[in-house]
Amino acid sequence: MTDTTLDIIAIGNALVDVLSPTTDAFLAEEGLTAGAMQLIDAAQATALYGRMGPGREISGGSAGNTVAGAAMMGARCAFIGQVAKDQLGEVFVHDLESQGIEFTVPAREADIPTGRCLILVSPGGERTMNTYLGAAQFLPPESVDEAQVASAKVLLLEGYLWDPAEPRAAMKAAIRMARKAGREVALGVSAVFCIMNHLDDFRALVNDGDIDILFANEEELLALSGEGDFEAAVAALAPKLPLLVATRGAEGATAVRNGERFHVAAEPVERVVDTTGAGDLFSAGYLVGHVQGRPVAECLTMGAIAAAEVISHFGARPEQDLKALIAARLG
Amino acid sequence: MTDTTLDIIAIGNALVDVLSPTTDAFLAEEGLTAGAMQLIDAAQATALYGRMGPGREISGGSAGNTVAGAAMMGARCAFIGQVAKDQLGEVFVHDLESQGIEFTVPAREADIPTGRCLILVSPGGERTMNTYLGAAQFLPPESVDEAQVASAKVLLLEGYLWDPAEPRAAMKAAIRMARKAGREVALGVSAVFCIMNHLDDFRALVNDGDIDILFANEEELLALSGEGDFEAAVAALAPKLPLLVATRGAEGATAVRNGERFHVAAEPVERVVDTTGAGDLFSAGYLVGHVQGRPVAECLTMGAIAAAEVISHFGARPEQDLKALIAARLG
Repeated sequence: MTDTTLDIIAIGNALVDVLSPTTDAFLAEEGLTAGAMQLIDAAQATALYGRMGPGREISGGSAGNTVAGAAMMGARCAFIGQVAKDQLGEVFVHDLESQGIEFTVPAREADIPTGRCLILVSPGGERTMNTYLGAAQFLPPESVDEAQVASAKVLLLEGYLWDPAEPRAAMKAAIRMARKAGREVALGVSAVFCIMNHLDDFRALVNDGDIDILFANEEELLALSGEGDFEAAVAALAPKLPLLVATRGAEGATAVRNGERFHVAAEPVERVVDTTGAGDLFSAGYLVGHVQGRPVAECLTMGAIAAAEVISHFGARPEQDLKALIAARLG
Repeated sequence: MTDTTLDIIAIGNALVDVLSPTTDAFLAEEGLTAGAMQLIDAAQATALYGRMGPGREISGGSAGNTVAGAAMMGARCAFIGQVAKDQLGEVFVHDLESQGIEFTVPAREADIPTGRCLILVSPGGERTMNTYLGAAQFLPPESVDEAQVASAKVLLLEGYLWDPAEPRAAMKAAIRMARKAGREVALGVSAVFCIMNHLDDFRALVNDGDIDILFANEEELLALSGEGDFEAAVAALAPKLPLLVATRGAEGATAVRNGERFHVAAEPVERVVDTTGAGDLFSAGYLVGHVQGRPVAECLTMGAIAAAEVISHFGARPEQDLKALIAARLG
């Protein structure tokens, strides 16, 4: 096995978030389920954007958020995703490259624009996501470079991207490349609807030993396992995974590694402004600890610190220096 | 004099801010003066954007920020400015219209894109602004509709826009329309370099009685008056203006109305994150109090509350409900 030159290479949706405060009344009028994520088409995106309040545009995408956070903590990262040749595409790419994250996939012509996620943020910080995938869904399998995948300790896959056909093929190819090179494969299952739409695929990935690290929240674990409660879901899935990391919001997070179980409480947060990216940044903190060879308990703490920072302001990209926050706690 | 259907109509630069944390070292490397605003061309904007860190895109523009804040506080507003037919232009227009702000100027073709302001934010919140005006500088005089100007209690002019020729002609026309209709004209002088580049013009506006309300900070007052200290500048300018509002950062703000002087302390802020828009939002709070016919002391307090909110987070558009913050204090 050759040396790695990257810590994490991620495949995910290239999206710019449009974040706007909202009210329960607006969500009800729009028929939106608070806290959920739904895919919308271009016409729906235009209509919803026209009705929602003023926004702030901040690069997003689940795996993109994770590598942005990981790079800030000092990890060497690359990202594979599809933008269009437009201003939002330039923003997305700038925000990765300016953090030293490798990004080599050429932008598509702008007939279909860069994807965006219209995020309505309730008082208290709960986010309701409406994603227009745009160019992101056309990520072609040939975007995945075998040498680049083989150069990274961990391949991180975004479950959301399992839905469209081309990126799914890209991720399947990347899994083969990573396994061949002896690298670890991490999967963030992203949302219950992803699991339900591709239940056989996700179960096969887990059962076949293709996944080394699974990141999921409680609802996602129930869906994936088919069990009715958290303990049963962990009991069913943990034996099939070298590492299972389950986030539980304000209740903290649990990891099971080779049968040993660890727990961390959530970090205190003065005011929860916007929970967008909480799971993505938890994964970032955890993975950075993981590639640094830290004990599981420290990896969990790093995840909790990164998640707490990102929910204290609008947007899923960190504002404060995560490396300094972690050094202050763990050294 | 007919009834007004608007409280404030503003003419200003249509810009989207790109806000990014920075360090003193980076400012020094780039040869930038902390706290200043400079105009840059397209090539400089591309180069600086390529070197600066990840950003967050939030609608900006000095007068645009003021009407956005004023609308949030319940004022009826309109904005006149020039965007291009591109994604940033859509963002800028959306962020105004979604607050009920009238905006009727057609977007230009996108050969010259929507303007943006690259804002580097130092630890402690000081902002250094690098503005690529783009489409904003081509605002044609015919964008100003006489009936619309006459329908507003106050015409607000952004000093920055005095630099390019077409918007300057638009603002001169708007002043004539407002005066003819018996409306008030407010000027935010924006920056010392604006005053120095057009000193005769600005002095003539004041001396000829074309300005009813002047918003300026301490340095701007010194430049405009040619005096060496704040008290001398106030003494020189106040007699020529029905209302002078001078902001002094952490030291609060002073207003002189028909010879009577008032002062307000700055509102306490837990953590100053980004001072972008502090002056613009002070003007917003003041003007809303003014059009509501409140006493000067209350207008100053409203300005201080709005300014304090906007410096507590990234970006020059308010996040918290300013109307509620003011009602909690003043009823």
